[in-house]
Amino acid sequence: MLKIIEGSIESVPGFRAAGVRCGIKNEPNPDLGVIVCDTPCTAAAVFTTNRVQAAPVLYCKKVLAANADKVRAVVVNAGNANACTGEQGHSDAAVVADEAERLLGLESGSALVMSTGVIGVPLPVDKLYIGLGEVKDHLAKNVGKNFSRAIMTTDLVEKSLAVRFEIAGCKVTMGAAAKGSGMIHPNMATMLGFITTDAAVEQGVLQHALREAASRTFNMISVDGDQSPNDSVFLLASGSSGAPKIKSPDSPEYEAFYEALYLVCETLAKKIAADGEGATRLVEIRVKGSRKFEEAQRVARAVAGSPLVKTAIHGADPNWGRIICAAGSSGIPVEPDKIDIYFGRLLAVKGGLAAETARDKLAGELN
Amino acid sequence: MLKIIEGSIESVPGFRAAGVRCGIKNEPNPDLGVIVCDTPCTAAAVFTTNRVQAAPVLYCKKVLAANADKVRAVVVNAGNANACTGEQGHSDAAVVADEAERLLGLESGSALVMSTGVIGVPLPVDKLYIGLGEVKDHLAKNVGKNFSRAIMTTDLVEKSLAVRFEIAGCKVTMGAAAKGSGMIHPNMATMLGFITTDAAVEQGVLQHALREAASRTFNMISVDGDQSPNDSVFLLASGSSGAPKIKSPDSPEYEAFYEALYLVCETLAKKIAADGEGATRLVEIRVKGSRKFEEAQRVARAVAGSPLVKTAIHGADPNWGRIICAAGSSGIPVEPDKIDIYFGRLLAVKGGLAAETARDKLAGELN
Repeated sequence: MLKIIEGSIESVPGFRAAGVRCGIKNEPNPDLGVIVCDTPCTAAAVFTTNRVQAAPVLYCKKVLAANADKVRAVVVNAGNANACTGEQGHSDAAVVADEAERLLGLESGSALVMSTGVIGVPLPVDKLYIGLGEVKDHLAKNVGKNFSRAIMTTDLVEKSLAVRFEIAGCKVTMGAAAKGSGMIHPNMATMLGFITTDAAVEQGVLQHALREAASRTFNMISVDGDQSPNDSVFLLASGSSGAPKIKSPDSPEYEAFYEALYLVCETLAKKIAADGEGATRLVEIRVKGSRKFEEAQRVARAVAGSPLVKTAIHGADPNWGRIICAAGSSGIPVEPDKIDIYFGRLLAVKGGLAAETARDKLAGELN
Repeated sequence: MLKIIEGSIESVPGFRAAGVRCGIKNEPNPDLGVIVCDTPCTAAAVFTTNRVQAAPVLYCKKVLAANADKVRAVVVNAGNANACTGEQGHSDAAVVADEAERLLGLESGSALVMSTGVIGVPLPVDKLYIGLGEVKDHLAKNVGKNFSRAIMTTDLVEKSLAVRFEIAGCKVTMGAAAKGSGMIHPNMATMLGFITTDAAVEQGVLQHALREAASRTFNMISVDGDQSPNDSVFLLASGSSGAPKIKSPDSPEYEAFYEALYLVCETLAKKIAADGEGATRLVEIRVKGSRKFEEAQRVARAVAGSPLVKTAIHGADPNWGRIICAAGSSGIPVEPDKIDIYFGRLLAVKGGLAAETARDKLAGELN
């Protein structure tokens, strides 16, 4: 029932997306993206847990606290993070949202804003104004790829996806775009995700679903282990599919919705990890036999985040000692003599001791 | 009063040290080090907090639980960590200690053992036996440098130090040797420290002093952020200086002792950080204005451990955004708009915002 379809953020009926070049980035690519919905959406979002929070993060939190059922648009610029920009940054975020609402004829407080790029430099609001002036025409064309491109910073490939599924016999669409994270000079990059759907979901349930899915997908990938002050994922649900409104995480409708959301988040998260700056390999870590999910999560994070494990994998070195040690220092009381480690399907460690698989065979799994 | 003197681990009267080649490492350098004291010592130690603990760590914990006032020797090999070696590893550690005690004419249970090197490979006990057979002659020569060299793995320089100070008018000596940590293929390396002194200190007080000093020195350096299953620091106090026995951390005698111990630990920790595998810069992070030491420690660790901060510093890029973000994600509730950041004496950030110091000046501090 759930299937991936051609398209992206713009494939959901009622949503339009655009990307234009407003000149914040010194390159001939779009750097301002806008998503608009014909009707008010229920919105959910998850944000960075960094104590340093960019101005647009704080602005969006305010909008969502007041108007989480009336969101119409998201405006995103690349090239400048509007982070560590003080009072000016806060007023710049608000001014950009206001201008977008005015130009697109939306109610006040219905536009979310996000920024990604360099930290500590005032947002060039004049350039954003010029870009916003051109957005309306581009929205009419509704080219989702332009949005996905406009949010890229050091990303090498554009990341988007659309899926179709059914809720109680009604056709529902979900579209998404994301940008990834890198660690190379000169900018700290940010992870941003934007998801649109025409499902109808109560705000609390929508937030619950996004938090769950993000914690098991976006929050589990590790490129450099650092958190940006802008990291955010937004989910807008217009309800225009005609499918019955999802009011509880215990309903079968929720199950169908969550399955689609999880697939979207997982796919984007893997695309982000694969396109991490300087990334040469994409590795999945599966932890089995933990007492609870959170413990498996911490062990997986410790292994994925270990520079020693990363360098070993980069060098196709099946150095399981680094993996077992990273697990041992995760803070979870793992029992070393009960640890088995596999590379692919090959057993490298049995009960905490070297298994008999030849080293070059294990190395083969890493090539 | 406290001064650094020529010498090392062997400079403390009553202690002798040696290093011999027993052939565990495939190179013509010593790989077996021994420290012996003429008289029983009070011993303290701190060990890795990794759940994966090497056999010699577990062996030493047993010895210290039973005989912390009767320690006479430490036997250390490089090239093999005796970690993830199961039951065989435990019995190998014990057998090496027994053999050292027999050959050196020491009481049973008075020798500590430690190993560093590859993980998951059985300890070549026969080679250690051969090396131990030669140690006695070398101990007579008492060349501390050979011990420091014997414990090296991927270290490029030998790390040792001796200091002299006074306790209640009596001359006291403290000697030390350490090996460092690296993160490059193929071995996880380990941090080991060995400290000897002729001060007299009650075991509980000695342990307290070592724990304090280690937590502020060895435990604050970051090369790759990983913990080995062998990391340990040992402190042996013979009491033969004639200085009065230190019985409380509140005494002036403790203060003099701790000052010396701190200098020794700090000096070795800096040497280890400077000689980290692939290290090109040594950076000190000072956190001021925290409510308590532990909070400053966590912020400093978050900044020091951030791959983004490391890469920026490596590239002489005064990218303070990465520093403020690392502090923000430390888990400590820092207040971003109260953060000032200095590079050397130059102000880069004032109240969470870019200060006016020119970027090339800041970069100059990193070159």
